[in-house]
Formats: sequence, structure tokens, C-alpha cells
Amino acid sequence: MPGEFDLIREYFEAATGPREDVLLGIGDDCALLRPPPGQILAVTSDTLVSGRHFAPDADPESLGHKALAVNLSDLAAMGARPAWASLCLTLPAADRDWLAAFMRGFAALAGRFDVSLVGGDTTRGPLAISLTLHGLLAPDQALRRDAARPGDALYVTGTLGDAGLALRLRQAGRPVPRVLAQRLDRPEPRVEIGRRLAGYARCAIDISDGLAADLGHVCARSGAGAVLEAARLPLSPPVRAHVAGRGDWGLPLSAGDDYELLFSVPPERQAAFERDSADWEVAVSRIGHIEAGSGVRLRQADGQCVEEIGGGYDHFSE
Amino acid sequence: MPGEFDLIREYFEAATGPREDVLLGIGDDCALLRPPPGQILAVTSDTLVSGRHFAPDADPESLGHKALAVNLSDLAAMGARPAWASLCLTLPAADRDWLAAFMRGFAALAGRFDVSLVGGDTTRGPLAISLTLHGLLAPDQALRRDAARPGDALYVTGTLGDAGLALRLRQAGRPVPRVLAQRLDRPEPRVEIGRRLAGYARCAIDISDGLAADLGHVCARSGAGAVLEAARLPLSPPVRAHVAGRGDWGLPLSAGDDYELLFSVPPERQAAFERDSADWEVAVSRIGHIEAGSGVRLRQADGQCVEEIGGGYDHFSE
Repeated sequence: MPGEFDLIREYFEAATGPREDVLLGIGDDCALLRPPPGQILAVTSDTLVSGRHFAPDADPESLGHKALAVNLSDLAAMGARPAWASLCLTLPAADRDWLAAFMRGFAALAGRFDVSLVGGDTTRGPLAISLTLHGLLAPDQALRRDAARPGDALYVTGTLGDAGLALRLRQAGRPVPRVLAQRLDRPEPRVEIGRRLAGYARCAIDISDGLAADLGHVCARSGAGAVLEAARLPLSPPVRAHVAGRGDWGLPLSAGDDYELLFSVPPERQAAFERDSADWEVAVSRIGHIEAGSGVRLRQADGQCVEEIGGGYDHFSE
Repeated sequence: MPGEFDLIREYFEAATGPREDVLLGIGDDCALLRPPPGQILAVTSDTLVSGRHFAPDADPESLGHKALAVNLSDLAAMGARPAWASLCLTLPAADRDWLAAFMRGFAALAGRFDVSLVGGDTTRGPLAISLTLHGLLAPDQALRRDAARPGDALYVTGTLGDAGLALRLRQAGRPVPRVLAQRLDRPEPRVEIGRRLAGYARCAIDISDGLAADLGHVCARSGAGAVLEAARLPLSPPVRAHVAGRGDWGLPLSAGDDYELLFSVPPERQAAFERDSADWEVAVSRIGHIEAGSGVRLRQADGQCVEEIGGGYDHFSE
């Protein structure tokens, strides 16, 4: 069995993309990194645990993609440009094939977003992945959760509930359409959109915990309430069929694992934003607004309001 | 059972020390941090897994200390000033008492070294701790592993093998003297010494993998060899008794879990270094030198050389 250092060297170094601001990468006590003058650092960490966030037999290449994608999504929600990653991998055994596939998935996504893997740790134990990702941005471009104001329009990228439906189908042993499986296994982080939002949006969050829960976080931190319009929620055909068939809004509102951006745009910028975003490669939908008060309400198509929707994925309350 | 966000808020925020360079801490998609102009960033990550790096019933307060200490030790070995931490905690259950004790140990050490906890993730799963720690330093002060040159003298802080002896005694069910237990459970990172070394040392590493293995890393990366003088290795009385009784040098050379600094000082700075370090609060011992060639040799007191000592703690080759 190869030693830890061989493993690190062989597979991690293959994912160390070339960046001029990496003065020293993998192989010393620390990585040495040079932030550009005048920029600030955005840092996010996420852990994926086998049996909880993915099945023990999950495809390792998809897992390598997803471990990075969920963190890229957090940078996107802050409007930051991705830069450096540190990867802590805990593996039951030094399985070369598994590791090679994992790093292939990781490196492919890292290359697309100019992320350099600069350090980390490999240990033996129950399969888990903790990634810390660093991004860079101008200090006045941060899209914080606490910045929404009454009157702001709420928008979301892409469609809601696709990953949740894929997971339900898979867990039920039913076939999962490829387009849904991709949404669950290979989510596409909205990094470019996050950066473009700086000129328009006041506040952004990614909706990995589910739309209702994450909008709840925005409301709580911004000291405001929000109304969602059910008829405006962007749904893919299979999710639309599910909602229509069962009257169950749980999937688009709180299933989680959607790596889309939810953001608020103040009234004076809405026209420009809707005009400019019309030709973006990912659809953006206006789905409600921020109002005075607190909590999140869902307004049905008939105008009736359901008070205080909530829920979402909580790792400790299930 | 409390939700993830309650857990994070209550216990993590208590460990968020006040630092002016933290623009946004826990609670958003990312932390926002402002590196000081002209400084570079040192980043290190380490994972501790239950049953591997610590016993499942280990004291959580000591564990909180140690998780931070092992990363502080990496910053010390680079000569960096600690700044920001991101903590990924995987816990079997949301145990308030455990978490409170863990964070108490973490926060006490963080406060001493002006570390602010700025983010992380809590998930449910087999007990494990992944920490990413950020430090700051001037670009020309980094103590890299690849900078040792033939003729440099080798020094080490503190004493060798104490943690290894504590672990052996504990695993054998024998009483562990308090001073040894502290060395295993509450290691003291040599942060101040690391920063003072900038004016003297050329190269540094911490010896968490064991003296022989970590000196081997220095040699491999610096393209050089090294000789250690057995008679000069600094040993505490219990380790000295163990070595004398069994003729077993494995404990001080390769048991690992020693968070001391090994560093090299070029000939022209040795006199000044030995004079200036004489009154440091931690003893510094000259233990050998760098020479041309490769590999690490141990010279016994009788002058005989044993070729190529090695080994050390490798998480994947046991």
C-alpha cells in the first residue's frame, strides 16, 4: 500500500493548477499564497460524509466534482472569484482507482474555474471529504445575506427541486432521468452569475439548504420578511408534474441540494437587471419580494397566503 | 435536538475572537477577511479522526485544544502569525456537553494566539475534526522545507518522544505521568519561536510525523543529506530511561505527535543564534547538521553511523 506522501503527491499535485499567486503549493507545512492588493478574501468550508450526503458506493468522479461544486456555490453566492482549495480526505483505504477518479472529477471542475489545490490532508477512517475554498473580491462587491431591504425583488437562477426529485427516485429504486441525475450528482455552480450580480444585486445566498430555509436566513439576518409567488417558481417539467400531481410544494421549497442563487435586487435596478440578464446562459426568474416584518410566506396562484413556510435540510434535526 | 444553525451560532460564535481584519465571520455563505497589505498568506489543514488520532472517549476539551494546536504548529514551522480558522466538525450526535467542552479547549488556545474562528461546517457522522488555519507573514520570512544547505546546523525545540511514550503507557493501561500526558493531549505549539527564527533559520518543519521522517522530508526537498548525533538528542528523563533501558531509539526518532520545530541555521549565524536563544523559555538543542548527499543518518555516541534511519507516522502505510 502506498504511503500517505506518495498518495498526496501523485494525485493532489495533479490537481494543482497553475496560478501565479501560489508561491508554494502542496508539500510543505503550509501553502504560501499572495492575495492581490486591494482585494479581500472569501473563505468557505463544507463537509460531505458518506451515508449522509452521498451513498457509500457513489461514483467517485462525481463526488470529486460535487465536493468542489458545493463550495464554489458558496463563493458564487458572495460574488467572489475562485482561487485556492485545501482538501481533507478521509478514506477507509488507499484505493488508487477511487482516488484517481475522485481527483479527475475534482480537477476537471477546478480547471474550469481556475482553482488551484494548494494543500490538505489525507487520513484513514470513515469516508468523508472536507474542503475549504478561497475566493477573492473587491471589498464593495460582497453579496451578503444581511443586505436585503423591503421592496427588493427576489430572483432565483435555474430551476428548483430537481436534485431532490432525483434523490427520491433513486432511493425508491426507480430510474432517474439523466438530466435530473446531473442536477444531483454534478451540480453546476453559478460562479459567473455571482460575479455579474455585483452591479445589480444587494444580497445573495445559495439555496443548498432549500429555498424556504435559505430565504429564511436572508430574512432573519436582514431583519425583514419575504413573500414567494408559487406561480412564479421555476420548475423543470418533471418537478412541475410532481407538484401538480401531489400538490406537494416540499420538493421545490425545501428538498435542498439545489446549488442555485437566490438574490435580491432593489427597485431602481430591476429594469436594467431584467434587460441585461435576458440573454444569460442560465435563466433567472423573479419569484417574489422582500417586505417589512419577518418570516417567509408563500402566496398561492389564487392570492391566498400560507404563513411561515420553512424547513429545509438541517444536518442535525432530522 | 437543536438544529445545525443553533449549534453553530451558540458554540462557534463564542470562539470568534475579535480581529479587525474579519469583515464578516460565521453566518454567511463565506467569511470575508482582509489580509494586511504586503503580507502573504500561510494556509494549513489537518484532520483528526476518532479511533485513529485519538480515542473515541478522549476528553473533548483536550481535543479542542489539540485540533487547533496541530495546525498552529504548522504555522509555527513556516514562521507565520496565526489569524483565522475554519472548523469542520463531524459528530455522531448534537451533544451539547461534548461540544461545549470541545469549544472551551479550542477557544482558550485560540484566544492565546489571537485566532478568530470565522467559519466551518457541522455535520452528522463518525467523529472527525478537520481544521484549516490561516496565518500571515512577510514574503521573505517564510521558513520553507526546501531551503536547507550543506553546512547548516540542525536544531530542535523541546524534547523528543514524550507524546509517543505517553501513548504507549496509556495503550498498555499503565499510569501516565501528568507531564507526559500533557505533551500528548495538550501540545504547546511553538508559534513564538517560529516567528523569532526568521532572523536566523533558513529552513524549518514541525516534527509531527517524527524527527527522522520529517528530517527526511527536509532532505528530500532540499536535495541534501543529514546526520543526527544520538548523544545530542534532547530527551526528558522518562524517555531517556526508556532509551537507556531498551536501546530503542524508535521513540525519540519516529514515534511522532511531537509538535516541536526542527530547523537549520547557516554557519555564519550559529553563534548569534545560540547566544540569543539561550534565554528563550523553551530549550533549543543543536542535534546534527546538513551535508551533501541524501538521506538521514544517526551517529551513535561511539562515532559509528547507522545508515538511513527513517520511518515515522504514516497514516496510510500501517
